This record gives sequence, structure tokens and C-alpha cells, in this order.
Amino acid sequence: MYYIGVDIGGMSIKMGIVNEKGKIKLSRSIPTEYESGFKVMVKRMADNIADMCNDIKIKISEVGGIGCGIPGVADSRRGVVTIAANIGWREVPIVEEFKKYFSLPIAINNDANCAALGEQKFGSGVAYESVVFITLGTGVGSGIINEGKLLEGVGSAGAESGHMVIIVDGEHCNCGRDGCWESYASATALIRQTKQAMDENPDSLLHTVAAKYGKVSGRTAFLAAKDGDNCASAVVNKYIKYIGIGLCNLGNILHPNAFIIGGGISHEGEGLIKPLQEYVSKNCIGADVNPTINVLQATLGNDAGIIGAAALVM
Amino acid sequence: MYYIGVDIGGMSIKMGIVNEKGKIKLSRSIPTEYESGFKVMVKRMADNIADMCNDIKIKISEVGGIGCGIPGVADSRRGVVTIAANIGWREVPIVEEFKKYFSLPIAINNDANCAALGEQKFGSGVAYESVVFITLGTGVGSGIINEGKLLEGVGSAGAESGHMVIIVDGEHCNCGRDGCWESYASATALIRQTKQAMDENPDSLLHTVAAKYGKVSGRTAFLAAKDGDNCASAVVNKYIKYIGIGLCNLGNILHPNAFIIGGGISHEGEGLIKPLQEYVSKNCIGADVNPTINVLQATLGNDAGIIGAAALVM
Repeated sequence: MYYIGVDIGGMSIKMGIVNEKGKIKLSRSIPTEYESGFKVMVKRMADNIADMCNDIKIKISEVGGIGCGIPGVADSRRGVVTIAANIGWREVPIVEEFKKYFSLPIAINNDANCAALGEQKFGSGVAYESVVFITLGTGVGSGIINEGKLLEGVGSAGAESGHMVIIVDGEHCNCGRDGCWESYASATALIRQTKQAMDENPDSLLHTVAAKYGKVSGRTAFLAAKDGDNCASAVVNKYIKYIGIGLCNLGNILHPNAFIIGGGISHEGEGLIKPLQEYVSKNCIGADVNPTINVLQATLGNDAGIIGAAALVM
Repeated sequence: MYYIGVDIGGMSIKMGIVNEKGKIKLSRSIPTEYESGFKVMVKRMADNIADMCNDIKIKISEVGGIGCGIPGVADSRRGVVTIAANIGWREVPIVEEFKKYFSLPIAINNDANCAALGEQKFGSGVAYESVVFITLGTGVGSGIINEGKLLEGVGSAGAESGHMVIIVDGEHCNCGRDGCWESYASATALIRQTKQAMDENPDSLLHTVAAKYGKVSGRTAFLAAKDGDNCASAVVNKYIKYIGIGLCNLGNILHPNAFIIGGGISHEGEGLIKPLQEYVSKNCIGADVNPTINVLQATLGNDAGIIGAAALVM
């Protein structure tokens, strides 16, 4: 049996035919072009899905369903996208629309939830029943799997861990409030923290690294720290503490088997994962008596969206 | 059918015979006397349970099981109390010990989890599938019901929401870390905040109220605020904001149907619940599109422990 995974993003829609083992047999990417409206978008997705099945000679009777990852709040029970601001959707009955083209099980979910499911079923979380997936990118996204099942909250409105406040009245966040985890632990936040350190330390190696790559990025502080710059190390350590604080908060509330770290920042690998593991092992409540929460790097990368969306209908 | 609920506390052990509707038919309280060790404690509980059943002529065949609330981490799967510091327990096989006296289903859980279950099944949460119970007392305890089921975390180590950090490097907490929700939102924290306001405002009505009742308590600021004292209102408003911040964090992560507020501070009633509802309705992420999370006062009071413990085996 095969499963279709669709990963809708602001710029492109990625579609894949996935087998029972979570392997992508064929994938395709088309521009999102959301200005055309959701009906035209679904028709284009449906045409491409049929086309792809045709390409590798898979009959519709061999397809177990279509799962769709949404960049916003997707009410999985109703099959309606409550809101997906960056593709202009609000109360869009996407499942109903898909059903015009396919007599198959159709499921939707938030894209970070899909990635969490993908990682738990086929990525670095395969050994575990309960994982929290965290993506450290432009923002901080999350998906929660509790005892093998997505924890979505009422109306699928939960798993927005990036917007838990870790400093009351702290840095302003894009969500409109102040002090959210996202405004300290995202790549965007790290860039701000790096620039601030550069302003305060004109002799730091941070300037050399930034000049070499033509800009300050989420890698700048990590690179300069590796080269022994104390100022950069201080930026990295503080940033890791901010991530760790949020992970421990989630650990104290949910106590999963593992945290799976994805997103651009996760490419730092052991330089990020190891100190985070140390922080979590030491700082979660009852760390001396309770099971350790493992901190792991995500392994599916950009495929997590397609694979996880397909996993919605497995 | 009847169910036995046992609520073990630091000072006393409360036991009750509960019917299917969550009504306590008979209850009894004995001193904890944990110095005698857990085997003697279980024997005393078993004797009292048998005695109580005898008192109201209930046969053991009419009892569906015994549930036990523990003031600490109770690993419900293993039936072992991992740690309960204030009764001196560590790795105590309490279920095994109970089974020496009864051939009945025996279940254990953390006491706040039991109270959460009691409130969801028979208290103010009966209309809802997913609730988070918060107790505002000496500390801040919590219990999470997700889709009708306790969310305990691996090793039952979760639902320790009181120890999520809301201010990095903030007030020192009893747990050893800094900035936990508990150190801002507990009754203990409110008393500290009230005393600080009194030090800074010698003319505040807070002094009169404290003198009238002979001490500063969790009620002092609420009472003085009701009498129109601006300084007291500021204390209350800030305290409510701290509680609200934590509730919104939990809302963003779990998005339950309702928060149920228990513990000593909850007796403030509408003066507490109404502003908390306003805060949560306004500040949870996507508040304009997502379902509202209701903020409710707990209704079972001190009985929640017994009723919830009994509900573990229903």
C-alpha cells in the first residue's frame, strides 16, 4: 500500500508517494500560487497526485489515503483549515474539496505536527512512544506525540510551544505578546543576540566570521565559538540555555521519552545537541529520580513534512 | 458498584467509599504517621478500608477497586511510588503491598492528577474531554486530562507545570531552580508579593487588613483591593497576570477545553476567575480564531482527592 503526503508551504507545495516503511518513492514540488484560491490549488494538487501515480504505475486502489500538512491551524476533526495566514486561508474546508477528486481517506494537520509524526514513526524517534519535536528556524515550531498519538488540543489549537512565555514582559514577539520562547530560541533570535554581542564587542571574531560569509546568520556565533572566541561562546551558551529552559518547561509538563530537534539550527549537530542534553538531564524536575528525556537531532530533514503528512493516513 | 479512594497526605490519610456517581458514601481520616514505614501504613489503610466497608455493609465483591493518591511521583504503570519526599518514600512498591490485603484492581497516581480526574469526571469539568487542573496553594500543582485520559508523561513524571520557568533567572524556587511559575503564582508567592508592597507602601490599607487578621495571608491583598486600596489592587493585578501567563503557556501547548482552578487561592471565586478568563481569552495564541479555553473554579474542594483516587479504578 502507498500513501500520499502533501506539504503545503508559503512558496511551494511538495507532494510525495510514500510506502509503508516511510520511504518516498516519488516526489514533486509545484509553486503554491495561493492567490488563485484554494479550489484551484486543490485541483492542481489532485492533478499532480494522479499524474505521479500514473508515472510509477500505482493504481488508486493501492493508495491508502492522502495526508496534508498545513502551515497554520488545521482542525483535523472538522477537516477545515482554521487559519493559515501566509497562504491567505481562513476557514477553508480542504478535506471536503479534496474529496471531490478522490474517494480516499483524507487527513489534514499542522505542518510541525506532521513533521513530529514523521520523525516518531520513521525518523530519530522510532524507539519512542512519546516525543516532542521542536523546529528551530525563523520561528520555533513544535509537534507533540503522546503515547503514539498526536496531541493537538481542542480545535487542533495546541502544540504552539514557541509561544510559551519564558520571560514575562521580555522581547517582543511576532505574535504580538512579549517574552515568548520563540523570541529567544529561534534562529531569528540568535541572529539578534549575535548582532548585539558584535555591537558590544568590536574586537570579537564574530565580525571576521560575519564578513567572511557576507552576513550574520544563525551559524555565525557557533562558527566563531568553535574558533575559540569567548564572546561568541557566551552568545552560544546563553542561546542554548534559552532553548534548554523551554525544553525543560515542556519536559516538566509532558515528560516525553525524547525531544527531537529540527530546523536550520539543528544542523549544528553535536555542538547543539550535547549541551542541550546536559541541560535537560540536569534541570528537569526530579532529574535524579525520573527517566531521562533524550535530546536527539531530527533525521528526516525536509522530507519530514511529506513523510509525516503521509503518516496521517497510515 | 463502589470504589475506594485513598488520599495520602503529609499529615493525614483520607479514605472514602465512593459510588459510581462520584458521591462519597463514607469517609474517614487517620494520621499519616509515615515514620512507621510503608508496610505498617498499608496495613493500617487496609484495616480501615475493611472496617469502613463493614460499617455500611458493603461486601468486597461490591468493590470495583482501590485508587490511591500520592503526594509525589507515582509511577502508575509500575505501581511504584518513585519519590514522595514529605512522607519519606522512595521506590515504594505500594500496589504490590496493597495486593497482600485485597484481590482487587489497585491503582496509584499523583494527588494533583487524582484531583484533576475527580474534577473532570464529577466536578466542574464534567462537560469537557480535556482539562488542566491547577491548584494554587503553598505551591502550584497540576493535573492534565487529555481527551478523557490522564496525561502523566513517561514514568508518570509529567504534569509538573508549577516548575515551568516564566522568568529566566527569576525568583528562587523550592525546587532549586529560578523563575518557576510556582514562585510567582502560589499562595506563598502572593504573600511575599504582598509583604513587599507593604514595605514599599506604609500607608496602604494592606497594613490594616493584615493587622485585623493577625497576619499576611493569600487573602490580604484581595481583601484590601475590594476596599479600594490602589496598592493592593496593583498586587492582585500583577499576581493574576502571573497566573494568567502560566495558563496561557499551558493553553498554547495543550489547548484544553478548560482550566479548573483549585487550592486555597481559588476561594476568591469570581474576583479571581473572571480576570483570569479575560486574560486567557485575550492572550492565548490565535485567540481570535481558536476555541476559547474556559476558566472555572474547582467544585469538589477537599473531596477531590478521595473522589479522584476512586475514579482511577472506575
